[in-house]
Amino acid sequence: MFNYYTHKLVFSKLTFFNNIKCTMVKTMEQYIISHKNPDTDSIVSAIIYSKYLSKKGEDFIPVALGELNKETKFVLEKFNFSSPKIIEKILPDTKIILVDHNELNQSVQGVGFAKIIEIIDHHKFDLKTGEPLKIRAEPIGSTCSIIAKKLFENNYELSKEESGMLISGIISDTLFFRSPTTTQEDKDIITRLNKIANITDLESYSNEMFTAKSDLGDISAHDLVRLDYKMFRFNDRNYGIGVMETTNPSYALKRKDEIVKAMKDIKESDNLEGTFFSVVDIINENNKTFYISDKDKKILMDVFKGIEFEENILDIGNILSRKKEMVPRLEKFL
Amino acid sequence: MFNYYTHKLVFSKLTFFNNIKCTMVKTMEQYIISHKNPDTDSIVSAIIYSKYLSKKGEDFIPVALGELNKETKFVLEKFNFSSPKIIEKILPDTKIILVDHNELNQSVQGVGFAKIIEIIDHHKFDLKTGEPLKIRAEPIGSTCSIIAKKLFENNYELSKEESGMLISGIISDTLFFRSPTTTQEDKDIITRLNKIANITDLESYSNEMFTAKSDLGDISAHDLVRLDYKMFRFNDRNYGIGVMETTNPSYALKRKDEIVKAMKDIKESDNLEGTFFSVVDIINENNKTFYISDKDKKILMDVFKGIEFEENILDIGNILSRKKEMVPRLEKFL
Repeated sequence: MFNYYTHKLVFSKLTFFNNIKCTMVKTMEQYIISHKNPDTDSIVSAIIYSKYLSKKGEDFIPVALGELNKETKFVLEKFNFSSPKIIEKILPDTKIILVDHNELNQSVQGVGFAKIIEIIDHHKFDLKTGEPLKIRAEPIGSTCSIIAKKLFENNYELSKEESGMLISGIISDTLFFRSPTTTQEDKDIITRLNKIANITDLESYSNEMFTAKSDLGDISAHDLVRLDYKMFRFNDRNYGIGVMETTNPSYALKRKDEIVKAMKDIKESDNLEGTFFSVVDIINENNKTFYISDKDKKILMDVFKGIEFEENILDIGNILSRKKEMVPRLEKFL
Repeated sequence: MFNYYTHKLVFSKLTFFNNIKCTMVKTMEQYIISHKNPDTDSIVSAIIYSKYLSKKGEDFIPVALGELNKETKFVLEKFNFSSPKIIEKILPDTKIILVDHNELNQSVQGVGFAKIIEIIDHHKFDLKTGEPLKIRAEPIGSTCSIIAKKLFENNYELSKEESGMLISGIISDTLFFRSPTTTQEDKDIITRLNKIANITDLESYSNEMFTAKSDLGDISAHDLVRLDYKMFRFNDRNYGIGVMETTNPSYALKRKDEIVKAMKDIKESDNLEGTFFSVVDIINENNKTFYISDKDKKILMDVFKGIEFEENILDIGNILSRKKEMVPRLEKFL
C-alpha cells in the first residue's frame, strides 16, 4: 500500500476490495472566501469570480462563512444562482482567494495556515503575508465593481444573469449610490453592465432588494445586533459597532428594550469599552444609533452632533457609512 | 496680503514687486517613491509609471531615496532618461505612490503621515493603512513586468526608449531569467516589449548591464555591504543580509578582510544577532556568503549545506535569490 500525499493532494478514500488495493486521491479543494458577515457584495463577488476562473480552467469553489441574509437570497433567486456552500474552517495549505476583505480576523478559521494566492478588495488594508501574492484593490464602492472591471479588461463574456448579479452587488454596497463610498466609476460600471442585464427600472429593483433585506422575520435581538457587526480598536480599547441598513427602521426602533439588553450582553461577552448599534434608514438617509451608557452617548453627541431621539437612541443625521464616516471620525476623536 | 493655504496647496514663493503683491502658489508635489535601496527595477518603474500617469493628466514626480547604482545609471544613459530627483523625506499629507515595496520601513521618511494612494509591488506584504487604496500586486519577477502589463492593458503607446527601460528593469530583477523568482510571464513580456525596443542581442545587453553593476570603483567595504542590504526578524532577533550581484565576484572576495571588519561594525551598530553578506556570481550562478561568527557559519552549513571556501566564506551553491531562497529557508530554520 502506498501513501499518496503531496502538498497538493489529500487523502479521500482508501478501499480494500477483493485484495485489490485502490487508493483514491483527489485534488484539494480551492476556495474563494467571502468574509464573516456574508453580504450581497461579497457573495456575488465570490460566485462570479469563480465563474470567470472556471472559464480559464481554474477550479475555485465560492463559499460563505455563514447563513446568507434575505437580500442576498433574493438576488440569487432572481438570477437563478444557487447558494454557495457554507464552510467553517479550512485545512492547512488550502489555496484560497479572499474577496471583499483582507484582514485575517474577518476571514475563515485556519486562514493563517492557508495559501492566500489572491485578494480582491475595496477596504483599508491590514495584511502580513509570508509570500508575494496577487492583489487587486481599489478605493471604490463595491468589490463587485472591481470584479466587473477585471472581467471587462479580460473580455469575459458576461451573461445577462451574471451582469444582474454584479449590478446587485454594487447596488447593495453603495446603497444604490447613496453611500459616500460611491464613485463615478461604480455608476459607469452599472450602466455598462445594464446594457447586458437590461433591468428596466434600477431604482425600483434596488427598492425590492432593500425591502428583502429589511424583512428580518423573527430574528432575535442578539442576532439583529450581530447581523452586520464589527469590532474596532480605538486608543487600545475595543468598540463594537453593529449596523442595520433598512427601508423599515421602525422595526428595530420598536424593539428597543430587547436590543438594549442584547447590546449589554454583547458588551460583556466581547469585553468592550463601548458599543453602538446604528439603524440606517436607506431611503430617507438617516441614522438612529443605539447606545447603552452615558459615556457612549457623550461620544456620539461630540463626534456626530447627535440629537436625542428617545432614551438610548440618538439621531445622528445622514451618516450612512460605518467604514467611511463613523469609524474614521470615532478613531480621530477617541 | 492673503495667506493661500489649503490641504492641497503649499506656499511656494511670495514676491513683492513695485508695490504689487504677487502670491505664487503651486500644488503640493506628488511623488512616485522607490525604496531605500534604489535598484534598476524600482527606479525604472517609478519613471515609466510617471510617464503613463502624466499622459492621463496626473502629475507624479518619480523620486529616488538615495544615489543610483552604476547599472541603473547605465540604463538611464542608454535610453536617454535623466536621473530622478533624490529626496530624503516628505511633508505630511503628500500624495504618494509606492513602487516595488509596500513595507513602510523600506520607504521614505515621513511616509506614516503621507497619503498613500497606490502601491505596485511584487514582494510579500506587510501593510496597514487607515484608508482604502489602490493596490496592484503580483507574484512575478519584477515590478517593471507589472507596469508593462498595466500599460498594455490601457493601450498606452510605449516608445522605443520606454520599452528598453522596462526590459532593463525586468532583466535586472530576474538576473536575465536566472533568478527563481522569474515566471513565464516575465519572459513573454520582454518578448512583447522587444518588438518595440528592438534590442538585437538581449543576452549581450544583459551582460553589459551586469558589468556596469559590477563596476563599484573605490566604494568602501562598509558601503559595499550596505549596497543592497536588508534587515529581517527571525524568531524575534534581527539579522542583516547584504547581497552583491556581480559578474566579477573576485572583486569582493579579494577584499575579505575589509568586508569582515565592516560586517562586525554593522552587526554592532544595527544590534544584530547575526549577519551575512552574499556575493552572487550572476554568470556562473554561484553564491559565496561571508559570515563573522561560528554560530552564523553553523546556520549556513545547516540551512544551505555550505561548503568551506576559505575562512569567513562559505560556498552555498546556486542560491541566487535572497527573497525567494535565503530568507524563507532561514526563517524556517531560525
